[in-house]
Amino acid sequence: MPSYKAPLREYRFLLRDVLEIERYANLPTFADAPMDLVDQVLEEGAKFCEGVLAPLNAVGDAHGCKRNEDGSVETPPGFKDAYKQYVEGGWPALSADPNYGGQGLPHIIGLAWNEMVASANMAFGMYPGLSHGAYEAIHLHGTDEQKQTYLPKLVTGEWTGTMNLTEPHCGTDLGLLRTKAVPQADGSYKITGQKIFISAGEHDMADNIIHLVLARIEGAPGGTKGISLFIVPKFIVKEDGALGERNGVVCGKLEEKMGIHGNSTCVLNYDDAVGYLIGAENKGLSAMFTMMNVARLGVGLQGLSQSEVAYQNGVIYAKDRVQGRSLTGPKNADGPADPIIVHPDVRRMLMDAKSFNEGARAFAFWTALHGDLLNVSPDEKVREKAEDYMALMTPVIKSYLTEKGYLTATDCQQIFGGHGYIEEHGMSQFVRDARITMIYEGANGIQALDLVGRKLGANGGRALFSFFAEIDDFIHENENDAELKDFVEALQKSKGELQEGAMWLMQNGMSNFDNAGAASHDFLNLFGIAALTYMWALQAKAALAGKKANGADAYFDTKLATGRYFIARVTPEAGAHLAKLKSGADPVMALPAEAF
Amino acid sequence: MPSYKAPLREYRFLLRDVLEIERYANLPTFADAPMDLVDQVLEEGAKFCEGVLAPLNAVGDAHGCKRNEDGSVETPPGFKDAYKQYVEGGWPALSADPNYGGQGLPHIIGLAWNEMVASANMAFGMYPGLSHGAYEAIHLHGTDEQKQTYLPKLVTGEWTGTMNLTEPHCGTDLGLLRTKAVPQADGSYKITGQKIFISAGEHDMADNIIHLVLARIEGAPGGTKGISLFIVPKFIVKEDGALGERNGVVCGKLEEKMGIHGNSTCVLNYDDAVGYLIGAENKGLSAMFTMMNVARLGVGLQGLSQSEVAYQNGVIYAKDRVQGRSLTGPKNADGPADPIIVHPDVRRMLMDAKSFNEGARAFAFWTALHGDLLNVSPDEKVREKAEDYMALMTPVIKSYLTEKGYLTATDCQQIFGGHGYIEEHGMSQFVRDARITMIYEGANGIQALDLVGRKLGANGGRALFSFFAEIDDFIHENENDAELKDFVEALQKSKGELQEGAMWLMQNGMSNFDNAGAASHDFLNLFGIAALTYMWALQAKAALAGKKANGADAYFDTKLATGRYFIARVTPEAGAHLAKLKSGADPVMALPAEAF
Repeated sequence: MPSYKAPLREYRFLLRDVLEIERYANLPTFADAPMDLVDQVLEEGAKFCEGVLAPLNAVGDAHGCKRNEDGSVETPPGFKDAYKQYVEGGWPALSADPNYGGQGLPHIIGLAWNEMVASANMAFGMYPGLSHGAYEAIHLHGTDEQKQTYLPKLVTGEWTGTMNLTEPHCGTDLGLLRTKAVPQADGSYKITGQKIFISAGEHDMADNIIHLVLARIEGAPGGTKGISLFIVPKFIVKEDGALGERNGVVCGKLEEKMGIHGNSTCVLNYDDAVGYLIGAENKGLSAMFTMMNVARLGVGLQGLSQSEVAYQNGVIYAKDRVQGRSLTGPKNADGPADPIIVHPDVRRMLMDAKSFNEGARAFAFWTALHGDLLNVSPDEKVREKAEDYMALMTPVIKSYLTEKGYLTATDCQQIFGGHGYIEEHGMSQFVRDARITMIYEGANGIQALDLVGRKLGANGGRALFSFFAEIDDFIHENENDAELKDFVEALQKSKGELQEGAMWLMQNGMSNFDNAGAASHDFLNLFGIAALTYMWALQAKAALAGKKANGADAYFDTKLATGRYFIARVTPEAGAHLAKLKSGADPVMALPAEAF
Repeated sequence: MPSYKAPLREYRFLLRDVLEIERYANLPTFADAPMDLVDQVLEEGAKFCEGVLAPLNAVGDAHGCKRNEDGSVETPPGFKDAYKQYVEGGWPALSADPNYGGQGLPHIIGLAWNEMVASANMAFGMYPGLSHGAYEAIHLHGTDEQKQTYLPKLVTGEWTGTMNLTEPHCGTDLGLLRTKAVPQADGSYKITGQKIFISAGEHDMADNIIHLVLARIEGAPGGTKGISLFIVPKFIVKEDGALGERNGVVCGKLEEKMGIHGNSTCVLNYDDAVGYLIGAENKGLSAMFTMMNVARLGVGLQGLSQSEVAYQNGVIYAKDRVQGRSLTGPKNADGPADPIIVHPDVRRMLMDAKSFNEGARAFAFWTALHGDLLNVSPDEKVREKAEDYMALMTPVIKSYLTEKGYLTATDCQQIFGGHGYIEEHGMSQFVRDARITMIYEGANGIQALDLVGRKLGANGGRALFSFFAEIDDFIHENENDAELKDFVEALQKSKGELQEGAMWLMQNGMSNFDNAGAASHDFLNLFGIAALTYMWALQAKAALAGKKANGADAYFDTKLATGRYFIARVTPEAGAHLAKLKSGADPVMALPAEAF
């Protein structure tokens, strides 16, 4: 049975020593989150995730959800009760708006909480995760009345939410969508159509489910310009806030999936369901996409979360399982064999995972901090940079963290040998659950295209130049620090490779868009490597300072060694990505379609 | 529902044009396999795999095997009948020894057949696959009587076989094994112990199952030097060949696995089971390992097989699914959107898979040809080189083909977006089935250690030098061929990187064995890339010749473009592996175990 320990020390190190969030104590939300409160909140959260959610992870995988003939859906044993505790603990409110009952903590604290939940039980975490998406959409685009009607209950968690985009014939290309909305005399709409792959689409844990649904108003233009966003509650909410009639939306089927069995992935059939327009007519896509940055950061974090929990269990097994002897002589001479953690190739897999997890977490947190600054900073320049960074980094976090997370989870499964392949040890589940993160909320290929096609060139490349300038400043400030030398050099090299990739794109991507498309995956990886190399430089600097302040704490040496592994063994991957990128579209597009 | 088409044209191209097996028509086995007969056999085999085995693949995954209370095991619906057809078709006999009823075709033909079976239905293919392992062991190490007793029925397929190595506390480190064998007055032994992860360990498809079991004879030395190999039939075979008593071996449990659900993975409990020593006392491990080269080649091929079938279905989906528009303008202007095969990032994934599949298949076939020459060549030099190559290439094929096969299968699943994550389309199964190939028959990390620790230095590095010399000859012969220029240059670079890695290992691996261990994974990948680059050079040369002979056949242009993709987009990965390798053991081993 796999276990999970929340990486509280990592959170503290990142928040206090690396990102120094106490600097922002004068800003809203941060003002209410002094470090000792943050520690306390995360410790409480850790207890809940470790004690309540983690033990249900395998249960959810084995049992899955069950659809009854009437379309109602039962969640796996224990989920309903755990969700009740989740609500009672006030967790959905953590970083929500105090105007609607939220606790108003910075989003970066919510991010740490989300990672813990996803590591403990990703399928469970998706229920409140999707609610948060619905909350964001209504909070940003809803009328005051809509906010008053839906937000308080979403914030308490009494109601959950969903996002309805995909239809059988369209996922990525939402311009094709067919679900229709017919205006009614009372200002509402009747929604009809079929949505698929709706996570948390129907379940037995909450009193109501607030569906956010993309649909086309009768007579609206075709393509993406005629799509509107609607609120479609499972139970219609009466004026006094009480629940009224059951709406015309029913779960027609639960999908059989590779993983996340504990989450109900529904086909939802809308049949003259009552819906309320949210945001402007025909502007549904842009309303939906404003939620996407947050959702995509969350998915990147899910990739990391599976890598983290797989790593933790890989470590336990590698210390426990004895098999063979160390290549440099027995390390457990009294035992029948050495624990397999003595073997360099097992170490390689663990260090790959550990150095990825800690670098990736730093990257997600650093980006989320910019998200908070975008919301609360009084300084326009800070907000501009924060907005630039959120836009630029989001596709990188979504793709790089999920792809690498899947691979490191696979590596940690590998450490178990045959025992990793049987379901008993839980490693298969981490890999199977991680697999979806590369697909949903915009498949990774779409993220890469978003990066090179939209984000890179926005405002004349301002976001990227700003990132380069920040790295240059770091290099300049630290180039004479002998202890940071390895990190500064690796960063310089990695930044140079990213720059070369960007330059190649500028010179070749405009003349032939296929060059941009063919380069996008490798450019995104170049970016991910450079970003994590920078994160390791930041962490190394903080660790060196920590070591000076408290030399007896082995944590800082571990941190430095982990970073050195990353720059020795991961940063060099950038060279291969750059070489591939520069080979251009020709090798990729040479074959006519019929030659496949 | 996924489909499968056997790549018959690829087999023909490899066997006839690249490997030119007709050269060997004067040698045994090849003499009986003229190209037109080979074509015919493979065509027949393709029909069976496509029509009978492939449709049962998803059935096997969904139903799995069922263990009854008495320990008997039912295979998935349709498997028993398919196996009957398999036996009636004479397929188990394909490359078996004519002295025992085999058809005596070269093993390389058997390899093509095995790939087709594994692509169509890997879980099914493991039943006869394991039989072949048992056949090999008895054929190589059995007494005449043992051969007469067991081989004919294994060759017809009326009986199947298994290999029993792993115990709960030991897999890789067989020196720890505890299953004991007690000598009996009649020369037989009583075998007692528990074996786990026994593929095809119990089922309802054959009259008898011949288990090959590693056990320790009472009083034998501890460790690997006291292990013997035994034949333990499920039903004891009487002197007249009839089946006698049920032996004391029972399936205690079926494992719940991530994939290959159609194969029965058993815990086998031996309780005073009658066993017969095969080979010399205490030499069981080396007897087992002589079978391993063949088995490991087969597993490498399984990795390729899942990549191949995933690729085929990825292509079908990419041509069929319309979503978005080409970056360079609509390609399907009359339709609502373009087929996704127009998108460069989809192409990238398809080309990665296609160029891997065709390079990997060439590598496996080229190696298998050496395996055949080892058996039948009258020339001692040829046999020596063949033996060297078999030893050297086996771990590379096992690991490189399975790891890349898993990744390309994952990529092809990615092409399906959310539809790839639900079980309906079958892509999840290909990934889940492929996952085991990285683990069983010696986990990939063990293969890498075998390569650097044992194979590389054997006979003063003779095998590697011989491979380098062969590549140098090719380069020398073709360096002035303008049409081959790209391939020759890529090969030169790739060989240089492999050589540099080998040199580094020689200089650093002996002084600190951890350097060898830490480098092993990356060295194996360097090797795999160099080998496939060489295979692409060989294929390009044959394709250019083919094109000259028959310019109208687009096959050859496709082949060349696929090869050019490989050298532009895959060969450059070697640089990253070399850089990682040369960073040595220090970053990998820096942390004390308790720091994890």
